[in-house]
Amino acid sequence: MIDRLAILGVGLLGGSLALAARARGVARRIVGVGRNPDRLGPALAAGAIDHATTEVRAAVRDADVVVLAATVAANDAWLPRVWEAAPATALVTDVGSTKRSIARVAEALRVGRREVQFVGSHPMAGSERSGYGAARADLFEGATVVVTSTDASEPRAVKAVVGLWEALGARVVTLDPDAHDRAVAAISHLPHLVAWALADAVARAEPGALDVAGAGFRDTTRIAASDPRVWRDILLANADALGPALAAFRTALAELESLVATGDGAALEAALARIKAFRESVR
Amino acid sequence: MIDRLAILGVGLLGGSLALAARARGVARRIVGVGRNPDRLGPALAAGAIDHATTEVRAAVRDADVVVLAATVAANDAWLPRVWEAAPATALVTDVGSTKRSIARVAEALRVGRREVQFVGSHPMAGSERSGYGAARADLFEGATVVVTSTDASEPRAVKAVVGLWEALGARVVTLDPDAHDRAVAAISHLPHLVAWALADAVARAEPGALDVAGAGFRDTTRIAASDPRVWRDILLANADALGPALAAFRTALAELESLVATGDGAALEAALARIKAFRESVR
Repeated sequence: MIDRLAILGVGLLGGSLALAARARGVARRIVGVGRNPDRLGPALAAGAIDHATTEVRAAVRDADVVVLAATVAANDAWLPRVWEAAPATALVTDVGSTKRSIARVAEALRVGRREVQFVGSHPMAGSERSGYGAARADLFEGATVVVTSTDASEPRAVKAVVGLWEALGARVVTLDPDAHDRAVAAISHLPHLVAWALADAVARAEPGALDVAGAGFRDTTRIAASDPRVWRDILLANADALGPALAAFRTALAELESLVATGDGAALEAALARIKAFRESVR
Repeated sequence: MIDRLAILGVGLLGGSLALAARARGVARRIVGVGRNPDRLGPALAAGAIDHATTEVRAAVRDADVVVLAATVAANDAWLPRVWEAAPATALVTDVGSTKRSIARVAEALRVGRREVQFVGSHPMAGSERSGYGAARADLFEGATVVVTSTDASEPRAVKAVVGLWEALGARVVTLDPDAHDRAVAAISHLPHLVAWALADAVARAEPGALDVAGAGFRDTTRIAASDPRVWRDILLANADALGPALAAFRTALAELESLVATGDGAALEAALARIKAFRESVR
């Protein structure tokens, strides 16, 4: 049981964390922090958080656990203030989609104050929806959460962060920040960029075709409805890891395209069957 | 009410058609035709069809409506036999994913026997699942069905095919076969090819990332689990229309990639927002 939990950013992920922690009795007192006090109203009214504030320092002063749940850029910017104001015993984590950047900030902060602990998290439970209105108490149940530890991480802190997510029903995978960023570039950031390009291709080539769209188009482009500002930050933060994933995608597409263009039915069917088998090995 | 309905190919679409026609009292007697009699057993046992046979000619001899519901290549191959054996009053349609090829076959057949009517259909209600086991009586409820008419189509025949789908709960859009094939190249065939390339990119670049896949990857690549043989035929049959759609996709992706690579956050956010707005105009 966490005595005092501070959540910075009470949107889809932060709000779901508050609701889940409450529902499962994981935290006694939950403080929600946001830039705009009006936006915290619904979470307060629903009892997801006990207290709402715009003051980061005040919110984390007596926190046992601090979760940064804003955009990746905002989390990076908030971390130094959290580090200064949090008690020596505080454990800090985040829910950002890229992990090298915040790990570097935490590493730099540890030079000045070694006792505060940071261990990154990335719940693979996002959605094209955003904001507290989309938050759900069961968002993390059965979801995969990547916890990122480095050589500098204290095993006790890693264990506590893993335990927090497991207590909320998630399955935890641990990776170092580099491996995490490469993995999500391929499994999440590439699909997002491709989904946007796919919707844009229809807008450019056959906008009227939208009228006969079926489930195939809706599913492949669902994440193109994600928040542009949030995804701008994610894509820019992970641009270098996205490069090799995009190169692999381009090669894969060119090969399929060439099999279609040359009319090599047997090779095309074999390629589709091979990829289908790989795809079906997903959990 | 159709007195005698013959369905050639009792898989996902043909089976759902039988179940829906039965449930809504649209057809009195339904004959199911397949190459393999064993595969027709479940539809017969469930009462979706009244009679099962492997004999195309016998099945369509007294049919009022014949629906070709096999792969596009098999439908093209079956149509001449149907044309010869069906009564003069017969109305023939299909549920194939491309429409120019079967329209050309029908046009050629009409030179010899003008009284049989063919009007193509394409229910945008496919799925990565296939076979009668995936069939559902409500598959067409609220789905879009494209009915393809040409200058040679008799208005009465077009009206009858539109009426059949509307009786099953579908919303009908009519297009000529050329416009249909261009539209589905962009809205369906391109997303399929891209979904396969996306799954293959992960297999090539970061196969281990499959372990942390979230809903984004699962949704964007769901249709990469579609039947390789069926999709080999569709992609080859519509290769020429797929070309311009792929070119538009490549341009769209290259533009987004360049905004990420140059770090132009404002332009990237604006592009993502523009595409999101287009994507959200889908029904």
